Amino acid sequence: MKVAVLGATGVVGRTFVKLLENHPWFKVEKLVASERSAGKRYGEIVEDSPEEFKDYTIIGLKEFLEDPGVDLVFNALPASISKEVEEKLAQEIPVFTNARSHRYDEDVPILVPEVNSDHLKLVEVQRKRRKWRGFIVTNPNCSTAILTVSLAPLRAFGIKKVRVATMQAISGAGFSGLSAYAIHDNVIPFINGEEWKIENESRKILGKFTGDKVEPAEIEVAAIATRVPVLHGHTEAVFVELEKFDIEEIREAFENFDPLRSLELPSYEKPIVYTEIPQPRLHRDRGKGLTVTVGRLQEISGGIKYVVLGHNLVRGAAGGSILNAELAYKLGII
Amino acid sequence: MKVAVLGATGVVGRTFVKLLENHPWFKVEKLVASERSAGKRYGEIVEDSPEEFKDYTIIGLKEFLEDPGVDLVFNALPASISKEVEEKLAQEIPVFTNARSHRYDEDVPILVPEVNSDHLKLVEVQRKRRKWRGFIVTNPNCSTAILTVSLAPLRAFGIKKVRVATMQAISGAGFSGLSAYAIHDNVIPFINGEEWKIENESRKILGKFTGDKVEPAEIEVAAIATRVPVLHGHTEAVFVELEKFDIEEIREAFENFDPLRSLELPSYEKPIVYTEIPQPRLHRDRGKGLTVTVGRLQEISGGIKYVVLGHNLVRGAAGGSILNAELAYKLGII
Amino acid sequence: MKVAVLGATGVVGRTFVKLLENHPWFKVEKLVASERSAGKRYGEIVEDSPEEFKDYTIIGLKEFLEDPGVDLVFNALPASISKEVEEKLAQEIPVFTNARSHRYDEDVPILVPEVNSDHLKLVEVQRKRRKWRGFIVTNPNCSTAILTVSLAPLRAFGIKKVRVATMQAISGAGFSGLSAYAIHDNVIPFINGEEWKIENESRKILGKFTGDKVEPAEIEVAAIATRVPVLHGHTEAVFVELEKFDIEEIREAFENFDPLRSLELPSYEKPIVYTEIPQPRLHRDRGKGLTVTVGRLQEISGGIKYVVLGHNLVRGAAGGSILNAELAYKLGII
Amino acid sequence: MKVAVLGATGVVGRTFVKLLENHPWFKVEKLVASERSAGKRYGEIVEDSPEEFKDYTIIGLKEFLEDPGVDLVFNALPASISKEVEEKLAQEIPVFTNARSHRYDEDVPILVPEVNSDHLKLVEVQRKRRKWRGFIVTNPNCSTAILTVSLAPLRAFGIKKVRVATMQAISGAGFSGLSAYAIHDNVIPFINGEEWKIENESRKILGKFTGDKVEPAEIEVAAIATRVPVLHGHTEAVFVELEKFDIEEIREAFENFDPLRSLELPSYEKPIVYTEIPQPRLHRDRGKGLTVTVGRLQEISGGIKYVVLGHNLVRGAAGGSILNAELAYKLGII
Repeated sequence: MKVAVLGATGVVGRTFVKLLENHPWFKVEKLVASERSAGKRYGEIVEDSPEEFKDYTIIGLKEFLEDPGVDLVFNALPASISKEVEEKLAQEIPVFTNARSHRYDEDVPILVPEVNSDHLKLVEVQRKRRKWRGFIVTNPNCSTAILTVSLAPLRAFGIKKVRVATMQAISGAGFSGLSAYAIHDNVIPFINGEEWKIENESRKILGKFTGDKVEPAEIEVAAIATRVPVLHGHTEAVFVELEKFDIEEIREAFENFDPLRSLELPSYEKPIVYTEIPQPRLHRDRGKGLTVTVGRLQEISGGIKYVVLGHNLVRGAAGGSILNAELAYKLGII
Repeated sequence: MKVAVLGATGVVGRTFVKLLENHPWFKVEKLVASERSAGKRYGEIVEDSPEEFKDYTIIGLKEFLEDPGVDLVFNALPASISKEVEEKLAQEIPVFTNARSHRYDEDVPILVPEVNSDHLKLVEVQRKRRKWRGFIVTNPNCSTAILTVSLAPLRAFGIKKVRVATMQAISGAGFSGLSAYAIHDNVIPFINGEEWKIENESRKILGKFTGDKVEPAEIEVAAIATRVPVLHGHTEAVFVELEKFDIEEIREAFENFDPLRSLELPSYEKPIVYTEIPQPRLHRDRGKGLTVTVGRLQEISGGIKYVVLGHNLVRGAAGGSILNAELAYKLGII
Repeated sequence: MKVAVLGATGVVGRTFVKLLENHPWFKVEKLVASERSAGKRYGEIVEDSPEEFKDYTIIGLKEFLEDPGVDLVFNALPASISKEVEEKLAQEIPVFTNARSHRYDEDVPILVPEVNSDHLKLVEVQRKRRKWRGFIVTNPNCSTAILTVSLAPLRAFGIKKVRVATMQAISGAGFSGLSAYAIHDNVIPFINGEEWKIENESRKILGKFTGDKVEPAEIEVAAIATRVPVLHGHTEAVFVELEKFDIEEIREAFENFDPLRSLELPSYEKPIVYTEIPQPRLHRDRGKGLTVTVGRLQEISGGIKYVVLGHNLVRGAAGGSILNAELAYKLGII
Repeated sequence: MKVAVLGATGVVGRTFVKLLENHPWFKVEKLVASERSAGKRYGEIVEDSPEEFKDYTIIGLKEFLEDPGVDLVFNALPASISKEVEEKLAQEIPVFTNARSHRYDEDVPILVPEVNSDHLKLVEVQRKRRKWRGFIVTNPNCSTAILTVSLAPLRAFGIKKVRVATMQAISGAGFSGLSAYAIHDNVIPFINGEEWKIENESRKILGKFTGDKVEPAEIEVAAIATRVPVLHGHTEAVFVELEKFDIEEIREAFENFDPLRSLELPSYEKPIVYTEIPQPRLHRDRGKGLTVTVGRLQEISGGIKYVVLGHNLVRGAAGGSILNAELAYKLGII
């Protein structure tokens, strides 16, 4: 399938491009970015561009929209312009997007294949309702993606409450979204909109598909989001109250969680690896960035506490989105 | 009163020495350290020693124990050797200690003046039981000190559960307790014994003095402790379930919390300042390091979430201990 | 004297304001900034504003220029708008500026009081030539200021060549001039224009005042400028070839360098302190940021090598500029 | 050839092991470490051990020395114990070592294949003199390795003087050689013995093999070595005076430097890549860590200035040593 990456020069866009190099199903044909970059060689702007794409000429967004000419779009554009762009494209073409613009639409899934692959069925509702030949599938906010992968195996134990404190990496703010002066020797416990996203996206992702929409899970989720001086990899300290639990069974549930193995998706990796002391610098690249690392599991009154971390740009953004597309492809939806 | 500082060359000991410079009630007479430093000038080992102490000759611990000759001891020695040293000294001399060795003894208070000044009465129990002329008063573990100051004004709202994730500074591990290779570009969600301390010390500090001992508070406390690449200042993300609450009243309770103002203790500072986005680099030195900064207060289902931070070496160690001694002095106990 | 600080909300401007609190000669009357901040309380924008200035209303630059009403201006505006602003103001008012706009004008001194106080005489040339009642005095680029203070005592040994590699702090780029993503776990050996400034400003500062201009010193200066992940404090590795030298005499020359002590300028501090291993985190605040720390002095073939560091915002910007104004005041020029 | 890695659990030792995985000529048979690790699984101690070596049982040094049973030894032990160990082993077996113990022996080469491959001939002198069947070949100190690769193409322009300031990474000090408290938000311009090594090893490496020894190059080298908060990758600011030069020719000399291409050594990579702004985080892994990156080349009076960086553990240690062994193998010396 011919693929375009929108926002290909940003920090998420570059990750898309890197991960799509030599992809067996998706062939990147177009690298799209703002007018400022249009016409330049991709390798001129992206020093560490994969060899394959170095000589691609970047296409301006406007020009692209006039004649997309691809079968599939991955979107890494900022939310501010994504809404309109995605709606235009989705009339004809499937759009897998990292932008938040449509995440909260009733007929748009926030998809994490290992967690809620059945939500992909929302696409049919969406197509029908919007009269589109394409569709929009979103992946969650980065810290939510990591969190929900770790929560998925806990569903068997009856999740009641989740309290999560995140320690998020610099790259989550983009290339220039965070000043060095602000974060150096510091922790900043504020990321605009992040806590709301974690709390609400988690409940939607863990929710139940009822045929024409998703009923959010009745789980209390409360989040405190902080930024820490780490380049890549969001670390999350999680407290979960459960209906019933046995700490050893939970550990096994983490270790054995591997729900889509049989689908043989090209990017699929074991979603969770258990390690006693998860650390972003050591473990963020596990499973090419798609594996989250869980550790420090301990019992507390009424539940458990643990730490989970994952690569914010891969598991939490581009990698998750590509996995979404692979799932759709495998299921014959695209 | 003549004072000795034990462990005066370590990171906490230096903080004691700095804070005691020009103290109106306590005159540092002896700087005590391991045999390795004994006989050297304090200024030779401690580059940024206060002028007053530069030419003090460091006394070896063994020599000091043979003839203390002071009215008061502040102890910043490692826990491993503190138990014995403190018990020997306390037979004659009041000991205010940052070591954990006696924190969990039934007749030894873990004192945070703004939180549980009445626990100081345990000293009488202790003296009687142990037949000591002196006594031992401990201050809590650094992250517990910061946490409990923030919890104190919440008691009026009926604290039921506390979930806290800490982001602790490098200096909490001492000068050489943490390798640069380990923490650089990293978060390490493991600090030996720390979570247990937070969970248990908090309950003792917030507990009820019953005449001859302290009944731990019946609060569920669960902690996840992490180390982050910040020099000084522990940041804590806190979720609290309360029996009843009004978010505005809680904010006021934080802002108005000032219980010992009238005692006019020399080191006393407003214990809590509320700031929208607390950040260790910006706020750790507030109130000369004794003020904790609370912020990001928000309502969650059944309670609140907020962020608190404080200076681990001052509020969380030497400063808290000095405040303890000042309280004892003011109340005529020493 | 009534003083205005231009650009008072930037990183250098804030340093001016902090240093001018309670100044015995200069009374800050006006805090001037861009139209964006105009009308707001200074304390609203600058969280750690000195108490004295918290309730000052920020004045927009345009409004200020219409009616300055002060005796002295300190300028921390960006170079891009400084040229015009300074020339307008200097017609009537002395301007001490951190901007580079006029540094290379023949009749404008780049002043470092301890190094070239006689260059202040250029002001007379300037006034006459430009028919101004006021004048412009610049301080050098931050890394040049630090370097030249360390070179001053070496003039007695005949400086022939200087090779300097700088390791400059984040705050030198302003609040948002450097992205965290760029500098995290990195060294960036490029700061736009910096090397040229070091090479040329040094030669002018060390040059000879000939009555109507400054003849640049005939010293070869070559610089490589890098940015490192340090908050404040520029560290510089310096190699100097000298006509003659004795390593012990040079050490003494560093230690004894104290040329303006007798003038009793309010901000004056010993310009150089010698410490075996100078380190920015430990020594940048020496002498309230005006003292540079020299160390690691060793002989090499034909000269010496050493390390010098200083506070880029104080010695390298606002503090140096205030010292310039104090010198001018003391000498009766303002 | 059967290979043993000595000191296999340290930071350099692990790099040896990683680089030797699947090596076409050298088969790691034995992983040797201190008695403390002996008997444990390699994967138990080294979390990120290559799959191939995870189940190797670590052999204690003493046991190994009793019966080496390999054809080749790579040594990553600390210098303190290396001298004796190497001399014992070299009686029978070729030893390629990262330790400095024998670097300054007249009959031991400090080898950087791209720079002084002819110095390998010293091995014959060594064998004869010492009556050994094996021999010792050292690689230089990490910062020297990087520097000399960049100096090699400059020899054609007549190197007269070198002034170099290094900004060295944390991993150069080993896992626990540097405390986080020391280097956080800091630059430390002192690394024990480093400057002497750079100055003297460079001159030996660039020296002339005269048949039975190496005559050090008559180049003045002066170094200032600093530690900066970067994980891997030493950056060096270099000033070189040359007998003659043309800046464009020099750039080409850097870009075209590729002296051993034709030997087809398995680990060989282009030794130098020219990039305008070399940065350790971006470029340290170039050429699997064997390529140094040169940039910022500019003319100065009498010569040039430039920046070079390389991976301290690969180019500067294990990778260089393996390349040395490959050269010896190719030339039939082992």
